[in-house]
Amino acid sequence: MKLTIVGCHSASPRYDANPTAQILEVKGHLFLIDCGEGTQVQLRKFKIKFARIKHIFISHLHGDHFFGLVGLISTFKLLGRDASLHIYGPKGIKQAILLQLKLGKTYTNFELYFHELESNQPELLFEDAVLSITTIPLKHRVYTNGFLFQQKPGERILNIQKVKELDIDPSYYQKTKQGFDVPDSKGDMVSNAAITLDPSPPKSYAYCSDTSYCEEIIPQILNTTLLYHEATFLQQHAALALKTMHSTARQAALIAKKAAVGSLLLGHYSGRYNDYNEFKNQAQEVFLATKLAQDGKVFEI
Amino acid sequence: MKLTIVGCHSASPRYDANPTAQILEVKGHLFLIDCGEGTQVQLRKFKIKFARIKHIFISHLHGDHFFGLVGLISTFKLLGRDASLHIYGPKGIKQAILLQLKLGKTYTNFELYFHELESNQPELLFEDAVLSITTIPLKHRVYTNGFLFQQKPGERILNIQKVKELDIDPSYYQKTKQGFDVPDSKGDMVSNAAITLDPSPPKSYAYCSDTSYCEEIIPQILNTTLLYHEATFLQQHAALALKTMHSTARQAALIAKKAAVGSLLLGHYSGRYNDYNEFKNQAQEVFLATKLAQDGKVFEI
Repeated sequence: MKLTIVGCHSASPRYDANPTAQILEVKGHLFLIDCGEGTQVQLRKFKIKFARIKHIFISHLHGDHFFGLVGLISTFKLLGRDASLHIYGPKGIKQAILLQLKLGKTYTNFELYFHELESNQPELLFEDAVLSITTIPLKHRVYTNGFLFQQKPGERILNIQKVKELDIDPSYYQKTKQGFDVPDSKGDMVSNAAITLDPSPPKSYAYCSDTSYCEEIIPQILNTTLLYHEATFLQQHAALALKTMHSTARQAALIAKKAAVGSLLLGHYSGRYNDYNEFKNQAQEVFLATKLAQDGKVFEI
Repeated sequence: MKLTIVGCHSASPRYDANPTAQILEVKGHLFLIDCGEGTQVQLRKFKIKFARIKHIFISHLHGDHFFGLVGLISTFKLLGRDASLHIYGPKGIKQAILLQLKLGKTYTNFELYFHELESNQPELLFEDAVLSITTIPLKHRVYTNGFLFQQKPGERILNIQKVKELDIDPSYYQKTKQGFDVPDSKGDMVSNAAITLDPSPPKSYAYCSDTSYCEEIIPQILNTTLLYHEATFLQQHAALALKTMHSTARQAALIAKKAAVGSLLLGHYSGRYNDYNEFKNQAQEVFLATKLAQDGKVFEI
């Protein structure tokens, strides 16, 4: 999994601060998560082959997560896209996008599917052989979901030394990797565990923005490899975080700690702060493995 | 009048090419004309005090002229604006903006007035002591208006030498500038023409984008000081201009010539061209006083 931060700031777009958008690449898939105004320009800037995006996930319908979507869809049309596009987002997103396209008599020449969300329970949105994607219900001023991307366990790893020693015919290698017991050259069955190694544990990425401090998400994101959690405010503005239903860096770290995630990525910084290192400092008092999102930064998961 | 080109390109926003938006400053007024995606970022970049904008004119509801509007309105709210805002644009604009604000539960804390347009005849949109603003019906794939900004004639200019010679009391200067005949020191009436000079002719600016070649606009823009006319294509793509209801640089120049405007400003270039000088070259074969719009460029009218 490779995560590119397309925009990591909150509220209004500024010249050097783009509202939320991320690209998650998972074995050939290119998923776009949120799409603030100007996202399409950022995608070009970071040389992301955005025609490959087939699934877009919108957390909620505040402008800094959503106002860039209609422009991106229009650009797909102008570029002659023919691959279908799936958009997952809160109920209302379909009407908002289609109304604007209709007003401009802009009809896409590709299939556009809207998957409108309104459940307050986790919902499976997408699944294939590689991964599953599930909503993470969040608590914000409007209906909001995070998204959990979970890779599936890979094939078992062939213990080359062992299969050679036991003289297992290479035609059995594929079955071996799939976890089956297979015969050796004498026809005796060999237990799979004796000739394979565990694959590396499947990776997962949880995107949680925007949300107030919400312990209800912990069971769902337990042991996630990487957690992106919004941290709009520093501790000195905890009251403002409460009022606006956002989180502080410290609160994000508390969630990370309680969910025992591999590492925590902070973002969605309020424009009132100049030095983002303070977000990291405050979070690290609670959870050490904390990193800062930054426009254009790439994280290997 | 001072015109700032905020964005002069067509279709999709790119890193170095912003879709249409212009700021026209007229004696304290700051008018925004069109508002493609990313306009608010451009306004910050060019250090335009955009909180002063009270009137926004949207030519038509194609994304490259309109997708930045909802974000700008949201930013006005975030910045705590309290001055009312007037938006003039095609019917449908109100629903498109209000639906998006409503989905995000974003209610402006200032008064937002929509003036929806659907007439195919020129309409007076705004008038005060300084200027009038009228629609220029254009021909495009969707309902589109240009906008004509006409300054009103200024006060007559006092001929200082003459008023001194005739010993006119300074308390009469204001009346003199307003065009009245006034008495000299002996009480004899002096004709206004004898003691004043004509003010400089009132300036005007016509914004015409997007449109196919349309001679019907000529009577309305006759003798305009500056005409901005879209020139999406070069002559070699005249067929494409016809098909998409845009203009070539040469066609823009023909309109400028027939309307005997002071000068012509080209913009709305298609992304297919690298060298915009060719637009100027082709236009100048017809109309010499042609300039090229460029993001960030300022033109004194």
